Amino acid sequence: MTHSAELQERLQGEVMSIPAIDVHSHVPAAAPFARSLRDLLGYHYFTELAHSAGMDKSVIDPQNPDDGMIPALVEAMPTLDNTVQYEWMIELARELFGFGERRLTRHNWQALAESVAAKAGQPHREREILTASSIEKVFLTNSFDDDLAAIDKEIFVPCLRADTLVFQFTDEAVRRSLAKVTNVDISTAADSRGALQKLLDRFVSSGAASAAIALPPHFQVFPIMENDLETAIGKAAGGKPLSGAEMVALQNGALFAVVEICRQSHLPVQVMSGALRGAYHHGVPQGTDLPQAGDTLRGLLPLFNSFPEVTFSLSVLSDSQAHELASYGWIVQNVVVSGHWWYDNMPAYIERDLAARVQSVPKTKLIGYYSDMYKLEFGLPKFNMYRRVLARVLARDFVEGGRGTEDEALCVARLLLRDNARRIFNG
Amino acid sequence: MTHSAELQERLQGEVMSIPAIDVHSHVPAAAPFARSLRDLLGYHYFTELAHSAGMDKSVIDPQNPDDGMIPALVEAMPTLDNTVQYEWMIELARELFGFGERRLTRHNWQALAESVAAKAGQPHREREILTASSIEKVFLTNSFDDDLAAIDKEIFVPCLRADTLVFQFTDEAVRRSLAKVTNVDISTAADSRGALQKLLDRFVSSGAASAAIALPPHFQVFPIMENDLETAIGKAAGGKPLSGAEMVALQNGALFAVVEICRQSHLPVQVMSGALRGAYHHGVPQGTDLPQAGDTLRGLLPLFNSFPEVTFSLSVLSDSQAHELASYGWIVQNVVVSGHWWYDNMPAYIERDLAARVQSVPKTKLIGYYSDMYKLEFGLPKFNMYRRVLARVLARDFVEGGRGTEDEALCVARLLLRDNARRIFNG
Amino acid sequence: MTHSAELQERLQGEVMSIPAIDVHSHVPAAAPFARSLRDLLGYHYFTELAHSAGMDKSVIDPQNPDDGMIPALVEAMPTLDNTVQYEWMIELARELFGFGERRLTRHNWQALAESVAAKAGQPHREREILTASSIEKVFLTNSFDDDLAAIDKEIFVPCLRADTLVFQFTDEAVRRSLAKVTNVDISTAADSRGALQKLLDRFVSSGAASAAIALPPHFQVFPIMENDLETAIGKAAGGKPLSGAEMVALQNGALFAVVEICRQSHLPVQVMSGALRGAYHHGVPQGTDLPQAGDTLRGLLPLFNSFPEVTFSLSVLSDSQAHELASYGWIVQNVVVSGHWWYDNMPAYIERDLAARVQSVPKTKLIGYYSDMYKLEFGLPKFNMYRRVLARVLARDFVEGGRGTEDEALCVARLLLRDNARRIFNG
Repeated sequence: MTHSAELQERLQGEVMSIPAIDVHSHVPAAAPFARSLRDLLGYHYFTELAHSAGMDKSVIDPQNPDDGMIPALVEAMPTLDNTVQYEWMIELARELFGFGERRLTRHNWQALAESVAAKAGQPHREREILTASSIEKVFLTNSFDDDLAAIDKEIFVPCLRADTLVFQFTDEAVRRSLAKVTNVDISTAADSRGALQKLLDRFVSSGAASAAIALPPHFQVFPIMENDLETAIGKAAGGKPLSGAEMVALQNGALFAVVEICRQSHLPVQVMSGALRGAYHHGVPQGTDLPQAGDTLRGLLPLFNSFPEVTFSLSVLSDSQAHELASYGWIVQNVVVSGHWWYDNMPAYIERDLAARVQSVPKTKLIGYYSDMYKLEFGLPKFNMYRRVLARVLARDFVEGGRGTEDEALCVARLLLRDNARRIFNG
Repeated sequence: MTHSAELQERLQGEVMSIPAIDVHSHVPAAAPFARSLRDLLGYHYFTELAHSAGMDKSVIDPQNPDDGMIPALVEAMPTLDNTVQYEWMIELARELFGFGERRLTRHNWQALAESVAAKAGQPHREREILTASSIEKVFLTNSFDDDLAAIDKEIFVPCLRADTLVFQFTDEAVRRSLAKVTNVDISTAADSRGALQKLLDRFVSSGAASAAIALPPHFQVFPIMENDLETAIGKAAGGKPLSGAEMVALQNGALFAVVEICRQSHLPVQVMSGALRGAYHHGVPQGTDLPQAGDTLRGLLPLFNSFPEVTFSLSVLSDSQAHELASYGWIVQNVVVSGHWWYDNMPAYIERDLAARVQSVPKTKLIGYYSDMYKLEFGLPKFNMYRRVLARVLARDFVEGGRGTEDEALCVARLLLRDNARRIFNG
Repeated sequence: MTHSAELQERLQGEVMSIPAIDVHSHVPAAAPFARSLRDLLGYHYFTELAHSAGMDKSVIDPQNPDDGMIPALVEAMPTLDNTVQYEWMIELARELFGFGERRLTRHNWQALAESVAAKAGQPHREREILTASSIEKVFLTNSFDDDLAAIDKEIFVPCLRADTLVFQFTDEAVRRSLAKVTNVDISTAADSRGALQKLLDRFVSSGAASAAIALPPHFQVFPIMENDLETAIGKAAGGKPLSGAEMVALQNGALFAVVEICRQSHLPVQVMSGALRGAYHHGVPQGTDLPQAGDTLRGLLPLFNSFPEVTFSLSVLSDSQAHELASYGWIVQNVVVSGHWWYDNMPAYIERDLAARVQSVPKTKLIGYYSDMYKLEFGLPKFNMYRRVLARVLARDFVEGGRGTEDEALCVARLLLRDNARRIFNG
């Protein structure tokens, strides 16, 4: 074994056991782990890849019972057994369910299904999974009307997802729900701020660590005149149709209001930039969004410039913005660079992006990774995939590149996996 | 030799001999291989690079005889002997013409020229070249009025190039030629569909495997109202000038008509996205087009969404879209990812793009490579360049990355080089 | 040590000592090297990274004396000791000032500060630095009203920075200064050309090797009608406000005039494309500009097409254009590809971009690197960083890739580091 390979193996051994904080997931606090194999195979990565490779959508119809859906999906999976997503499934099956095979087949899925069902019944299963994954805490994605009291705060951290508030205030059901939760019947900008304040207060007092919002490609942030916002809210509250300009005023007004309250509450804002929603019309559920090449973060600068005291933890969806994102982390004090999101979440992209970030962004401004998972089991293979790339980049680029020692490399690794998240989100 | 280097060498040994199907070339069926060294050196890669490095355009003037053109171009080539394009020339000279030198010089080109001329006279030369290249079939690019009967179907596969039909219907010569070939004098949308149907039928009955079209950067596909199309065709058929909106209607109407007929005939459509034509005004022939950074595939979504039953084999010209392309292959069922086109056709780009594709796209949806060549000789060095990168990526990323065995890696290689093309295009 | 590692080490040994010409810097001829440690730590890379990581801007206030500023900045630097920028500081401290530590701390900066002050007093210090850096010549960035007589032409080469002339003619102070330097009071297009001619003549007779201009993202070059230019100059000269269209006319008219005079004087033009100025409002001085993803060079084509006899040495700021830039170098005769600018100036980007350039662009059209430095000391670590990447790329890709021998690789290295610059800029 070469010196270089030894170094990498040594670093990897260390990095694999560094505990992580997962700052973005969609884990439901009330059902955090899989009850059946369907909960795992039903993850959109598998359904969308299988559908993309030709599987009929009817397979995953909720009406299709487990013993129809599971074997049919298993049959479809050899078309995608080259992917890292497939490898996630195999790794979690091995590490969390004692599955001993390298491929999932019609002959062996039953054993895995039984193991999933059996493990689901064990007490403290969620803690067992997190321990096996070296994950300390998992941030959630909560709707403004979620019940936060029921959340197990020892391992979960609530986060307010603000998309609905910013983009769907014209939806009457949203307004009604908002009124119910806040006891504020919004008809003016002041009402709106009052309601948002109540919402945020509730989240903060429940231990929320951040607000989060996803913005579409080429979203342009504008500071809005109070008058224009007032008009837009009045119309929306009255159920009247809004012009394009009024929609801009409404959305930006809501965005600025949410961020202003985050500022007052010292709450960082997670911004996920660039998902083109519903782009592919025939996709499976959660398999219809795409990145858009040619996008830019330029349109978000008014937000970062307007709130220098708010920390924005920023992710992009398109690889064509990977360098732009690192550059923002490099000079913009209130932007930290976060994770490798969704379509970027594979070693080929992580490796180069991570090398560039570690070469050019202060190490205290990098949130290394988050899982984006829907069930806790996926934290293990996802974080492990990242840890392996992290060890490789630190070995080859940081240590062999002469910029630091192995101990210093491990210090960087700890910042990226846990310590930065803890400092930034526990403010 | 390290274990890692051994693995790579072993895989490369296997991958180099996997036969390939070349799904996109410009080989003329009637003159598929070089008759003289000029036919090889005259390839636009060499003329454009030599011109770019300072060679006067007059060198390649058709009036300049071979013994003026060839030595002048040979003199210019040391400026570009660092490139992979130059290496293509040397590799094909060595493998197909017994050329024993590493550089082409004023002292040795005559021997190569003689060998080219001598080999051209041998019977079954095209088969000899394909055998040496491990290429089974070569797809052609045929104009709608090409004589398809003369094509040697054992090794060549006709493909209809649809650009003229979609973008040049306002050209009277095109309309006349179309009328001649189809016996339809187009003056309505119905005429147009009838004529296209006749064209496609002729191609399908001659064994055509696909239609192909190149779309410019930021091309926006729109479904068109029948009335608007009728007006546009009427004007164009009458030789009247069209407004911008009418041109949009004409082009999109023709595009949808072509794809609709492909749907009925179960013919995949090859889409090459992003060439900015005639961008550089002073270039040599075929050396004036450029990629455009910042482009996106978003504008093509209405096409993919409108024809879920048609397989689109998609290529992009700009590296800034490499990730977007892989993402489309990942979730869009009727999009397969095809090759590494033109300005992307070099190891530095192929390696990362290929790694990302193999990590994230079902292996059945990847057309690994095509040559885009004008003479059969170039298939050898181009496919071999690709095979070497493929072996390296599979060794380092797939096998060493723990996602599969060597046998599984070779299975992926066979899909990318041949089996996917055979399944997708022989439908 | 593997054969591969030996090759790389051998090539690196050779490449490290190849002398370089630095075609773009901001070194002030009158104060080319550091007089104090503050001159080094005050480089915007350190102040912006430290500020980005949380340091208060007041630290670098000019009013803050050295013994307030230096220790405060040193305290901030552990947040960024992972970066290549930090490594530049350590390498130059070691190589030029005998600093023996790997990290700069509150305990050891004083020794370095003393060494900087002591070295500053030694005769011929600028030559000593350049010799230690293997840099032969350093191009400057001169304002049109700079005193060129005082420049030490043995080591420095004047270059006219044209940004002010093209973008700030509406500024009265600029017009006054221009009138003073040229003795031309501009009120017509002819006056403007006369003044520019005088400026350029002065630069050429002082040994200037190029003009340089930075263009913002998505800048669109238009050839302007003489009448429109006349109107725009008239208004600007009269201090009247210009419409958007008139600003376009004024800027493009000035740009074409500058380039036309460069054409007549056989002066290459360095174009730096893509800096979004003042994007981040709260940054430190020189730390407020950002790249913009999604940008394209397409808008510059009218310039390259209009002046086929002028060599444009082109750089981009956004990684999303790296492939586009290489493609321009590939086919556009009068475009040469230059360096790795600013936000792209780190090994993760240089390595892939350089590999692609050496694979696809004639070796005579590559200006490998420039420093962009403000003090001579930074030439050493920057060029050495580049030389190491260059050696690695040539070893792995060029020699091991079978495209050339070690000697040929060194020939490529010499072209990229020195010989191309000498040929192109000494025309």
